[in-house]
Amino acid sequence: MSGSVFGKNIKMSTWGESHGKALGVVVDGFPAGMELDISDIQKFLDRRKPGTSPATTPRKEDDAVDILSGVFEGKTTGTPISLIVKNTSQRSQDYSEIAQYYRPGHADFGFDEKYGFRDYRGGGRSSGRETIGRVAAGAICSKLLNEMGIKVMAFTRAIGDVEIDEKKFDEKNILLTPTAMPDAEADKRAMELISKCKEEMDSVGGVVECRVTGLPAGVGEPVFDKLDAVIAHAVMSIGAVKAVEIGDGTRVSKYHGSENNDEFVMSDSSVEKRTNHAGGILGGISDGSEIVIRAYFKPTPSIAKTQNTVNKSGENIQVSIHGRHDPVVVPRAVVVVESMCALCTLDLLMSNMLSKAENIIGFYKK
Amino acid sequence: MSGSVFGKNIKMSTWGESHGKALGVVVDGFPAGMELDISDIQKFLDRRKPGTSPATTPRKEDDAVDILSGVFEGKTTGTPISLIVKNTSQRSQDYSEIAQYYRPGHADFGFDEKYGFRDYRGGGRSSGRETIGRVAAGAICSKLLNEMGIKVMAFTRAIGDVEIDEKKFDEKNILLTPTAMPDAEADKRAMELISKCKEEMDSVGGVVECRVTGLPAGVGEPVFDKLDAVIAHAVMSIGAVKAVEIGDGTRVSKYHGSENNDEFVMSDSSVEKRTNHAGGILGGISDGSEIVIRAYFKPTPSIAKTQNTVNKSGENIQVSIHGRHDPVVVPRAVVVVESMCALCTLDLLMSNMLSKAENIIGFYKK
Amino acid sequence: MSGSVFGKNIKMSTWGESHGKALGVVVDGFPAGMELDISDIQKFLDRRKPGTSPATTPRKEDDAVDILSGVFEGKTTGTPISLIVKNTSQRSQDYSEIAQYYRPGHADFGFDEKYGFRDYRGGGRSSGRETIGRVAAGAICSKLLNEMGIKVMAFTRAIGDVEIDEKKFDEKNILLTPTAMPDAEADKRAMELISKCKEEMDSVGGVVECRVTGLPAGVGEPVFDKLDAVIAHAVMSIGAVKAVEIGDGTRVSKYHGSENNDEFVMSDSSVEKRTNHAGGILGGISDGSEIVIRAYFKPTPSIAKTQNTVNKSGENIQVSIHGRHDPVVVPRAVVVVESMCALCTLDLLMSNMLSKAENIIGFYKK
Amino acid sequence: MSGSVFGKNIKMSTWGESHGKALGVVVDGFPAGMELDISDIQKFLDRRKPGTSPATTPRKEDDAVDILSGVFEGKTTGTPISLIVKNTSQRSQDYSEIAQYYRPGHADFGFDEKYGFRDYRGGGRSSGRETIGRVAAGAICSKLLNEMGIKVMAFTRAIGDVEIDEKKFDEKNILLTPTAMPDAEADKRAMELISKCKEEMDSVGGVVECRVTGLPAGVGEPVFDKLDAVIAHAVMSIGAVKAVEIGDGTRVSKYHGSENNDEFVMSDSSVEKRTNHAGGILGGISDGSEIVIRAYFKPTPSIAKTQNTVNKSGENIQVSIHGRHDPVVVPRAVVVVESMCALCTLDLLMSNMLSKAENIIGFYKK
Repeated sequence: MSGSVFGKNIKMSTWGESHGKALGVVVDGFPAGMELDISDIQKFLDRRKPGTSPATTPRKEDDAVDILSGVFEGKTTGTPISLIVKNTSQRSQDYSEIAQYYRPGHADFGFDEKYGFRDYRGGGRSSGRETIGRVAAGAICSKLLNEMGIKVMAFTRAIGDVEIDEKKFDEKNILLTPTAMPDAEADKRAMELISKCKEEMDSVGGVVECRVTGLPAGVGEPVFDKLDAVIAHAVMSIGAVKAVEIGDGTRVSKYHGSENNDEFVMSDSSVEKRTNHAGGILGGISDGSEIVIRAYFKPTPSIAKTQNTVNKSGENIQVSIHGRHDPVVVPRAVVVVESMCALCTLDLLMSNMLSKAENIIGFYKK
Repeated sequence: MSGSVFGKNIKMSTWGESHGKALGVVVDGFPAGMELDISDIQKFLDRRKPGTSPATTPRKEDDAVDILSGVFEGKTTGTPISLIVKNTSQRSQDYSEIAQYYRPGHADFGFDEKYGFRDYRGGGRSSGRETIGRVAAGAICSKLLNEMGIKVMAFTRAIGDVEIDEKKFDEKNILLTPTAMPDAEADKRAMELISKCKEEMDSVGGVVECRVTGLPAGVGEPVFDKLDAVIAHAVMSIGAVKAVEIGDGTRVSKYHGSENNDEFVMSDSSVEKRTNHAGGILGGISDGSEIVIRAYFKPTPSIAKTQNTVNKSGENIQVSIHGRHDPVVVPRAVVVVESMCALCTLDLLMSNMLSKAENIIGFYKK
Repeated sequence: MSGSVFGKNIKMSTWGESHGKALGVVVDGFPAGMELDISDIQKFLDRRKPGTSPATTPRKEDDAVDILSGVFEGKTTGTPISLIVKNTSQRSQDYSEIAQYYRPGHADFGFDEKYGFRDYRGGGRSSGRETIGRVAAGAICSKLLNEMGIKVMAFTRAIGDVEIDEKKFDEKNILLTPTAMPDAEADKRAMELISKCKEEMDSVGGVVECRVTGLPAGVGEPVFDKLDAVIAHAVMSIGAVKAVEIGDGTRVSKYHGSENNDEFVMSDSSVEKRTNHAGGILGGISDGSEIVIRAYFKPTPSIAKTQNTVNKSGENIQVSIHGRHDPVVVPRAVVVVESMCALCTLDLLMSNMLSKAENIIGFYKK
Repeated sequence: MSGSVFGKNIKMSTWGESHGKALGVVVDGFPAGMELDISDIQKFLDRRKPGTSPATTPRKEDDAVDILSGVFEGKTTGTPISLIVKNTSQRSQDYSEIAQYYRPGHADFGFDEKYGFRDYRGGGRSSGRETIGRVAAGAICSKLLNEMGIKVMAFTRAIGDVEIDEKKFDEKNILLTPTAMPDAEADKRAMELISKCKEEMDSVGGVVECRVTGLPAGVGEPVFDKLDAVIAHAVMSIGAVKAVEIGDGTRVSKYHGSENNDEFVMSDSSVEKRTNHAGGILGGISDGSEIVIRAYFKPTPSIAKTQNTVNKSGENIQVSIHGRHDPVVVPRAVVVVESMCALCTLDLLMSNMLSKAENIIGFYKK
C-alpha cells in the first residue's frame, strides 16, 4: 500500500521532506473550468506559516507556492494540478544530533524499524511541513465548494484547558487572533498559557473544530465511505491528532436516545432538525444541517525539558530537544483540518452525483 | 465512488439488507494456506447475535454462515472467500409504517435525498445487520493475526455513565457477561441501567475499547494511511459511532508535552516505552507497545418514547417506534469494532512487508 | 493487491470456483432507481451457457441466477447488488488425476508456485466459469447504457481461419447462430472446422469483436484511464485472450499518417469523422463515432490429443485430457467481452460527468 | 475517477503539459534502501530525447531531471519520490493556430467535449511529453528489478513494413541505432522509409516489443489483475498505441490447441517449457519463461500534408500541420513501453509476496 495518496474522485499525492529541496502536491481529478489564481492557494498556506506570532516557532518560512501544471489562462484544465513550495530556511545542522536517538513522542523509532533508516533532518517526511501539500490541495477544493455556497471553516476551540465561549464567538477573529480562536478573550488566556509553557520549556495540546455549512442532504456513501468515516480518516492522518469526533462526539455515549435524537420538523416546506447532536451526519450521510467535526491534538513532542530516552546503540540517555519548535501546533493546524475536511466534502459531493440512475441518464440525454 | 468495499491488500465487499434474502461479504486478497473452518467464523458471528440476554433485542437471528468459495480441503486458496448468512427471522410487516416518515436519529431522510427512495424494511442497508459481513471478514483476519502471536480484543468499556474499573478487569468476563464488560460488577450496574432504559422506553449509549497486543513496531504508512487513520476510518464507519480515539485520546489536548511524551527505555536489549499515552502509535506507525482504540456509540435511535418528526408528505407528526430494538447497541458492537481493527491491522501488516527493498530482493533471491 | 475487484465508480467483486458451491458477483456503486428484473441478467448468462450447440461442451449447466441484495420493489437501490449462481452439474471426479500434473496451456504451474497448492477441480478459480460473475454484472451495466441509447454488442468475428464477411453482416444472426457469428455462411464453415477439430481431438482459437454505438464524445480519462486502456485491461483479463486491438489495431503500424488519420467533417451541424480507423477513440477519449474492440482468443488448452508435460514429482509424462471441454471458447466468450466492455464504458461515462466544474456546481445549485 | 495515477503497491502520479512550466511524477510506495542516483533516471530520459537522429524531431529538449524528495544520502527512503523536468525549449507561438480547429488523429475534439476547452499548446496534457513522468518512474522500477536479476528490455520490432530479422538480433544495437532496432540492417531500411515519409510530408507507424527475463513463476493475480491485463492497461495507455499482444498474440486465433500449447519439460530439476507461444504468461500468471509483449503504434497524426477537418466555428477547412514533429514515434516510445512494463512487473512482484499465509507469518515471526 502506498500511503501518500488520498481521495477517490479527487486524488492528492503529497510529497516532500522537511529539509529536502521542496514539498508539494499533485491534485488529480479536479474538474475543469474553475478560475484559479496563485493567491487562492497562497492565502491558505499563509495561515499555516510560522513566525507570525509568539504562539508559533520563530522559524521563518516563506512557503511561496508555484503552480506548475493543470491551470491554463487562469482556469483549471481538468488535468493534474502540480503545486510546489521550495524549502528555503531549513538549517540541517540543527538536527545532526537527533539522528542518533529516538525522540520521545516522535515516529523516529517506528521509521527506523519500518525502513531501516530515516531522513532525520527535521522529522523528514513525518514533519509538520508535510501538511503543506494538504493545505495547497485544500485551498483549491475550498474554492470550488465556495462557488456552490458551501463553506468549510475551522478554528481553535481549545488550547490546554482554555476553551472558547460560544457566546463570544466572532468568526472574523479566527483570522485575526494568534491562536485562531474566534473568542478574543479566550485567545488572550490561551496566549498566556502558551507563554508559560515556553518558559517551562514545555508544550501543550488543544482542539480544532471545523464546521461545514451549506452542504445539501445526501452526501456520503452508506457503508465504509460514510462522510464521517472518510473525514475521520483524513483528520486522524494529521500528525498530532489523537481523537476525532462528530457532533456531540464522545458525550453521546452517556446520552439517552430521547436526548440524543434530533427531531425533524418542517420549516418553510423544507425538512430541518430542531437540534444538531448528530453534527449534521446520520448513518454516514449528510442531513442538510451543519457538519461539526472536532480534532484533538497532542502537545508538541519536541520540548527543551530534559527527557529520558534511548539511542541507536541501545543505551539509556537523557535528552533536551532544542530548535525552533511550536509550543503548540493547534493554531497552525487549523487550516490543515479545514483543508482535509474540504477535500473529503468535495470528493463525496462528487460521488453523490452518481447515486441515481436518472441523474446519469439525464446528463447524457440532454 | 462505491462505498461497500474496504481495505487495500485485503478488500472486503459487504452486501445485503436487513430484510433481504441474505447478507454477506466477499474477502479478496486473503493469503493462501491458512486453515479455516466454518466454526472460526461462526463463533465471531455468535458474539453479535441478539436474543441471548436482556441487554439485547428479543429478536432471534440464527445467523448461520456458509462458506461458498475460497476454501479448499480446509485451507484458504488465496482466491476470494465468499461468506453468506441467510435472513430467516425478518418480519417485514413491522416496518411498513416507517416507510412514510423519517425516523429521528436514522439515515432515512439522507437515503431518500440521495437515492430517491429506500428499502425501508428494518433500515435496509443502514441496518446494524450490515455488520454481519464485517464480522465474518474480521474473524478470518483475526485468525491469521493469532497465528503470528498478534491478538485483537475488544470489550465494553462503558454503558451510559457506568464505566469499568481497570482494577477489576478480567478478560474472560468479556465473553461471559451480557454487556461484554470485563468487570463483572460494572456489568451488573450496566444491566440495571439498561433495564431502566427499557422501562422508560428509551435507550442509552456506551464505549467500546479495543486493544491489539503483540504487534511489532513499524506497521502503518507515514502520511494518509497511518495505522490510526485507517482504524479511525474503519471504526467511524460503524453505524452508531460518533467519536474515535487512540491512547489517551481527547484527554491529550489538555496535557503538556512532558506529561504526554512516553519515554523510551531499554529492556532486555529491546526498546520499550515506560508509559503508553500514545496508545502504541507514533506518527501513524506502531511503536511495539499495545494499540488502544476507543469508539463512542450513540444510544439506539429507535425508541418507543413519543417523538416529533415529519412524514414524506411534509407534515409534522408524532411517532413511537415499536419493534424489537436493542436498548443499547454496544454489547453486540464489541465484535464489530474488533473485526474492523483486525482487518486494518492485517492489511497494514501486509503493506509493511513491502517497505524495504532488501525484503523484496531477499524474497525473490532465495 | 487483490485481483478479483474491478472498476472505479462501479466495482464488481467476483468470486467462486468451477466446482465450489456457487459463483457470483457483488456490484457496488451501481446507481439507484433502474428497473431490474432477474430475466435481464438471466438472458445474458444464457448466452454463455454451454450445451446448446455442437460448438460447445455437452456439459449441462443451468446457471440460474438469483438476486440476493440491492434490488427493492423491482428497482436498484444504489447499494451492492449481490448475484449468485449455484453449481449443480459439476463432477469433481473428472479432475482428480489433473491434480498431479501441470496441464499444458493452463495456469496450474503458476498457481502452485504462487499459492503453494490449488483447487484443481475443473481449474478452480481460473476456470471459464469465473466469468459468470462478470456476465451477470455486465448485464446490469448494459441495461443502464441501453436506457441512455448506448448499445454494446459483441459477436464472433473469426474462428480459426474462418472470418465473417462484413457484407453478409446480419445482426440478428449473432443470437441465432451456434458460433455467434453475424454471417450465417461463415457460421456454417466455422461449424465444419469445429467438427473437424473435435474429430482430431484438438481445439481452435478465434476473434471476438465488440462495438459500442451511441456513445457521446468526451468519455475516457486522458492519461492512464484512457477508454481504450481500461477496456484493454478488462478484455485482456478474460482467460484465453492474447491480444486486444482498437479500431484498425495492429494494422496501423504499417499505415502512413495520411491514411490513418480520420478527417473531421461537419454533418448537420455536428462534428463527424469520414472514416473510423481510430475505432472511435482518440487520445483515450471517445470521439462520438462507433467504438470498435477486438479480442484474440487462443484455442482451448484442454485437448484429448496426447501431450508431453511434467507431474508434481518432477517426472516427464504424457497426458491426454478428457472431459467435456469446448473445442473453441469463442462463441461462449462473446457475451463475456460484451460484459466487460459495458462495465468499462459505464464506469468512464460516470467519471466523465465529473470533468467540468460547471456540471458539479449546476447539479448542486439546482 | 482520476486518470493520472497508476499502480497499486507503487503508485505513480504524473503531471504536466507540453508547454507548461515543467513535467514530472510522484512515485509513492517505492521501497526504502535502494541506491538511487540522478544518472539512473537521466539515462532513461535521454533515450526518449528527440533531436539525436534524423528519425526524430529536430526540437532540442534537454529534459534534465531533478530529484526533489524521497532520496536521502543516496538511498530511497520509502517516502514519495518527486521527480521534475523543466520545460525549456517550448515555443508556444507554433500552436496558436491549432487552438481554432480539431487536428485529425488528435484528441482535440474529445478534450473540448470533455472539459469545455483545452490547453492547446503542443497538445497540452495529451502531448507525448506526458510520458516523461512515466519514463522517470520506470527508470527507478527497472533498477530495483535489475537488483533481483530481472531485466526489462524493449526495442523497435518494426517501422512501417520494415521488420527486424530475429537472426540478426544484436541487443547492443538497441541503444546504438537511431530507430532502436536490434537489427542494424533493418535499421538502415527503416531510416530510408522515414526519410521518404518526411519528403512526402507524411508519417508512419511501427511496433515496439518488450521482453522481461528472469521473472520467477507465480507473478500476476488470477482474475482482473492478471500480469498481461495490467500490462495491457499500462501499454494501451501510451498515446499512439492501438493494439497490445502477449506472446504469439493475434496469431493464436488461428492456431489449434496442439500447436499453441507449450509443453512442460523437466530441465535440471526445474520445470521449463519447450516453446513459448504463451509469451511467459498462463492464466494471467508468469510461468517462469520470458515475458513477450508487443505494442502497435499508429503513425504520428501531425503531418504537413494537407488534410480536411473542421474548426470550432463549425466550418469545413483544410489544414497542413507544420511544426517540429517526429515522422514516427516508435524509436522514442521504446523506453516508454519498457518503463510501463517495468512498473507493472514490480508492482505485481510485490503483490505476489503477499499470496501465501506462510510468507506473512514467516516475515513477522523472524
